[in-house]
Amino acid sequence: MNALRRPATSPLAPGRFPSLPHIDGVRFATLAAGIRYSGRPDLMLALLTPNTSIAGVFTQSSTRAACVLDCQSKIGSDPSASAAILVNSGNANAFTGVRGQISVDEICLTLSNQTNIPQSRIFTCSTGVIGEPLPHERIVTNLDKLIASPKPANLESAASAIMTTDTFPKGAGRSLNITGKDVQIIGIAKGSGMIAPDMSTMLAYIFTDAHIEQSELQKITIELSKRSFNCITVDSDTSTSDTLLVCATGTSGIDVRGQKEFEHALEAVMLDLAHQIVRDGEGATKFIEVHVTRAADEADARIHALSVANSPLVKTAIAGEDPNWGRIVMAIGKSGALADRDRLCIWFGDYLVAENGWVNPNYIEQDVADYMHRSDIAIKIDLGLGLGAATIWTCDLTKQYIDINANYRS
Amino acid sequence: MNALRRPATSPLAPGRFPSLPHIDGVRFATLAAGIRYSGRPDLMLALLTPNTSIAGVFTQSSTRAACVLDCQSKIGSDPSASAAILVNSGNANAFTGVRGQISVDEICLTLSNQTNIPQSRIFTCSTGVIGEPLPHERIVTNLDKLIASPKPANLESAASAIMTTDTFPKGAGRSLNITGKDVQIIGIAKGSGMIAPDMSTMLAYIFTDAHIEQSELQKITIELSKRSFNCITVDSDTSTSDTLLVCATGTSGIDVRGQKEFEHALEAVMLDLAHQIVRDGEGATKFIEVHVTRAADEADARIHALSVANSPLVKTAIAGEDPNWGRIVMAIGKSGALADRDRLCIWFGDYLVAENGWVNPNYIEQDVADYMHRSDIAIKIDLGLGLGAATIWTCDLTKQYIDINANYRS
Repeated sequence: MNALRRPATSPLAPGRFPSLPHIDGVRFATLAAGIRYSGRPDLMLALLTPNTSIAGVFTQSSTRAACVLDCQSKIGSDPSASAAILVNSGNANAFTGVRGQISVDEICLTLSNQTNIPQSRIFTCSTGVIGEPLPHERIVTNLDKLIASPKPANLESAASAIMTTDTFPKGAGRSLNITGKDVQIIGIAKGSGMIAPDMSTMLAYIFTDAHIEQSELQKITIELSKRSFNCITVDSDTSTSDTLLVCATGTSGIDVRGQKEFEHALEAVMLDLAHQIVRDGEGATKFIEVHVTRAADEADARIHALSVANSPLVKTAIAGEDPNWGRIVMAIGKSGALADRDRLCIWFGDYLVAENGWVNPNYIEQDVADYMHRSDIAIKIDLGLGLGAATIWTCDLTKQYIDINANYRS
Repeated sequence: MNALRRPATSPLAPGRFPSLPHIDGVRFATLAAGIRYSGRPDLMLALLTPNTSIAGVFTQSSTRAACVLDCQSKIGSDPSASAAILVNSGNANAFTGVRGQISVDEICLTLSNQTNIPQSRIFTCSTGVIGEPLPHERIVTNLDKLIASPKPANLESAASAIMTTDTFPKGAGRSLNITGKDVQIIGIAKGSGMIAPDMSTMLAYIFTDAHIEQSELQKITIELSKRSFNCITVDSDTSTSDTLLVCATGTSGIDVRGQKEFEHALEAVMLDLAHQIVRDGEGATKFIEVHVTRAADEADARIHALSVANSPLVKTAIAGEDPNWGRIVMAIGKSGALADRDRLCIWFGDYLVAENGWVNPNYIEQDVADYMHRSDIAIKIDLGLGLGAATIWTCDLTKQYIDINANYRS
């Protein structure tokens, strides 16, 4: 089977990979192991200094991959030793039965023997084709080369090695100053690229030199992922591999427990990466923010926002640059959450198109039609019921999505 | 705004409109009123004899149209008088605020005055563009012509008059013999056609000469709609107009209360019409049956089946004739209902492609690839957990769906 190549970089891609600072205590290495792709790196190793706190959030899929189950079991293990994250692209090691766990065990055992990192501190992730056995011997035999020369500055190559059919590597960083000292947060992610026959997958790795206990970092990571990575949707299809790991080396010596500024910066990195995944959505030509206000409660707001963001009719309308608020009314109506037709107000950008259950009498079609030509579209929906609010980010649904996903495996 | 015309009849359309018997006590009339379309009938009237039992099932959308709310309020009213169903295509009278109800009232009042049918027995339905005021005066001024010459045999023209961008009129019928006498059931439906900026809408009207109390008919209609019209999905987007009315004139003199044979025949008509709607799904090239067995319970089976049937990745794979069971695993995994990865079995047609959490070792790719060239595709998923089963029907997701729905209103 050959990977289906997307023709070019997404039109929504940022201009360039960001310039990111080094994080003391983190080194990266990449290698072309020929797991599925040829002529490109497909293995990424991150080596982490002892006492690094590692927090994780994973897909809730009941058919999640062997490596995801393995990572989950290791979150919260004794942090005193060094740690490693090993990611391969090209094969997701998902739906591979017992053999999937054997592959994970083989890789962890070999890496542990070669590095003296305990297996409980080795996190492996796989992304790519599913249902095919992971040729783990191609990984195992390359580990000695991979661990030979890790470097702190290899962020862009690390981000590139974990790509499947992403059209650009994704990186983000923020720095903050706490009591006169700098704390750095950097991250890489992959997602929304496709190769037959797997599905949209998200992997994200964030590193900071802040000091923070694992239990505290875990709590923050869960909370912030709800507002970032769990607020994006490309096509409503959830991967069997989604993994987010946040690693705090503590090498800055700054304890960030209870520091809101740290949480805000971490959230900014997560959101930046999450938005880049949407901007690399298959076939995407529009980046769409769906913001719901005054729903009965927060849960209802999220249900409405997801219903709009996942509606094929809303997404195709935006692909066609049509300010089709009728389809938004439909998506709100079908969501199952509370709505009162006659209190609904809908905006495209700053343009109020519908209010109190009907078209805004002052609505000027041409203004909104002009707005729809932009690459970034904001939809605001006010339910007029309560205090619930939520924001979801998505992209449009285009013929290229069909092209990417309907092509027969060959 | 112009309707977006689909190029031709769906490749999944049946060869011709079926030959349907007359139902004593029902007459049909159609007329071109120029509500939105020109040069084609857009008004359909069904006149029903006194004592006709009328049952109804409606969209659950919280933003449903004014006429839907009006119909709902009239179900169960005194059946002794004559009754009428009046349907217009071209404008859905949805999200039209207070004005929507005024339009319904005007139409019902005028028709009542001209026919002596009480307003409580006049059911109106509208399908087409939403958010624009219904030009009800075009309906009102044409009612005298419409009621002048209704005929029992006008089924195909009735089915055609309610179409929006459906590519073929939909009709179905069954007859049954109870204690030596014939009972007839016929029906028409529209759905899955699109005009900017409205959404996929379903209307269905079924007529029988059986005798049955309204309360009993209502109970059966609700139950059977759960197994037919509520088991189809084209794109997961629910209309604001969905309406099913089942009318029993009693003119055969046969009481069908408790007659399972009647229920089976009625279900067959409903399923036939429901399947035709899927076969006319926007851009459809494949008719897909998703059958889930041995889920934990029936509710879980339905959740899994809908998750598979609504998955853009599953639907695009089938459009590409790819037996991509990995995406089915993904859709099962994300559904939220109970699943055990290592008990999952998946078939395309009679071909077992995955069992016990991995690819079937005897799977022959070419056999299944050949199967995928068919126009009708069956997917069977066995969860291996309990006794729950469900079947959902859908179509594939193709570039033509995007074409139909992304075209800018002009």
